[in-house]
Amino acid sequence: MKTIKKIKRMQEISDGLRRNKKTIGFVPTMGFLHKGHLSLIDIANKMSDVTVVSIFVNPTQFGPNEDFGNYPRDLERDKKLLREKGCSILFYPDAKKMYNEGFRTEVYVKGLSKVLCGATRKTHFKGVTTVVAKLFNIVKPDIAVFGQKDAQQAIIIKRMVKDLNYNIKIITGPIIREDDGLAMSSRNIYLTKQQRKDATILYESLKEAKRMISNGEAKASRVIKQMKKMISSKKTARIDYIKAVDTKELKTVKYIKGEVLIAVACYFGRARLIDNIIVNV
Amino acid sequence: MKTIKKIKRMQEISDGLRRNKKTIGFVPTMGFLHKGHLSLIDIANKMSDVTVVSIFVNPTQFGPNEDFGNYPRDLERDKKLLREKGCSILFYPDAKKMYNEGFRTEVYVKGLSKVLCGATRKTHFKGVTTVVAKLFNIVKPDIAVFGQKDAQQAIIIKRMVKDLNYNIKIITGPIIREDDGLAMSSRNIYLTKQQRKDATILYESLKEAKRMISNGEAKASRVIKQMKKMISSKKTARIDYIKAVDTKELKTVKYIKGEVLIAVACYFGRARLIDNIIVNV
Repeated sequence: MKTIKKIKRMQEISDGLRRNKKTIGFVPTMGFLHKGHLSLIDIANKMSDVTVVSIFVNPTQFGPNEDFGNYPRDLERDKKLLREKGCSILFYPDAKKMYNEGFRTEVYVKGLSKVLCGATRKTHFKGVTTVVAKLFNIVKPDIAVFGQKDAQQAIIIKRMVKDLNYNIKIITGPIIREDDGLAMSSRNIYLTKQQRKDATILYESLKEAKRMISNGEAKASRVIKQMKKMISSKKTARIDYIKAVDTKELKTVKYIKGEVLIAVACYFGRARLIDNIIVNV
Repeated sequence: MKTIKKIKRMQEISDGLRRNKKTIGFVPTMGFLHKGHLSLIDIANKMSDVTVVSIFVNPTQFGPNEDFGNYPRDLERDKKLLREKGCSILFYPDAKKMYNEGFRTEVYVKGLSKVLCGATRKTHFKGVTTVVAKLFNIVKPDIAVFGQKDAQQAIIIKRMVKDLNYNIKIITGPIIREDDGLAMSSRNIYLTKQQRKDATILYESLKEAKRMISNGEAKASRVIKQMKKMISSKKTARIDYIKAVDTKELKTVKYIKGEVLIAVACYFGRARLIDNIIVNV
């Protein structure tokens, strides 16, 4: 596996691959890789000739009171995992090179970026779309794989790709879970033993939502009320939001009909965890 | 010359060219071509293997009270001129395809977009940077050529390209003028005979500014005062702004030192004309 730090060098490599008719699969990450990331790399490996993984803890997608400084990092462990997965190229740029002096351009997807997680994390998605646009221009992939755990992010990126005419196929990989159902996340490391135990309630509540809907419940408010009750029963949980929204415009729905994203964000101590399911009625 | 309307088709052609190691030169225009545009095509022809010219009167860069509806169009004449120039490909997309249903992404260069022309045309540069980002993703050029008449646009595009890591060299072609000095513009067609005569004062005032500076004048306010006096002497002229700014941050300068952009925007009837010079002291 090659580790590339320089932006220009990465672009040269990608240009060379494309000239040689090799397709490039891309998995952008913030590192501290877990099985969720690795499953996305499997998808990229399967769908393209060469897989590029980026590791970049992007400062601009963290708010001033968020965990940028503490975000877990372990490059050597990540490299080992990537090598084992057969990743061809790790792109590992320097923050000073990504945001050089006088940087002042932003890519923004209106509307979709200010709801759900965007309501709490005001500048988060602007940071995400801007850095992903940059990474797309550097890595020049044919396909890019994002995780379904960040459902809103995947929807926003798909919109950006369509709107800005990036010739890139966006694939969403399913959520990978621990044995007890907790969605894999680099931030799970923040959890104390009690919080870790309590955090399983997120997926339990989503499963209960699914069960209610299968049994004919059509009112979103009833489903959300039940989820709220379950999650609130855990002492270490502090709910940020529980929402049922359509999967295109992310607008709150009153009735569960068609494709609906049920999404939850919840603090356990200093960890802010998210999880979701999509139901199709 | 091929005329390509479909976005996907244009991308396929560009991918094919790049695979065959052909370099692509790109000149984005709004059509109604004049010698200014043609000079940019000459530059693209010289610097690349294949020249792509786009004609797209981009609705999003016009304000609600501006001339989008009346903007001059003459596709057949444009095609003839492009063929004579040896342009290989005309990209001529449909506005409905460029801005499909649910479009909501914007590319914005902060600060630089709200001064000079951006102070009067509040949403203009957001429209420009967004459509140019799209066109870059569709045409995938190696170089792109912009006119120095739109000095602020060229500076903003260069910043966007740097910030978003577009692997594209931006070239600025010099202002092409009529025999009496009026900068070529598709909007000159709006001018009545008297306005056309009066409009030559823009370049006259810029030449006077240059002369003053060559003779040692260092105070921007004195230069601007003299320009204002000259332009105001014409009855049909209504000045929008006259500014002296640095060429990186577009900040107003008090003293003419280093590279300074002297830019003027002025209405003559319904035509809003711009012109500029760069001095280096």
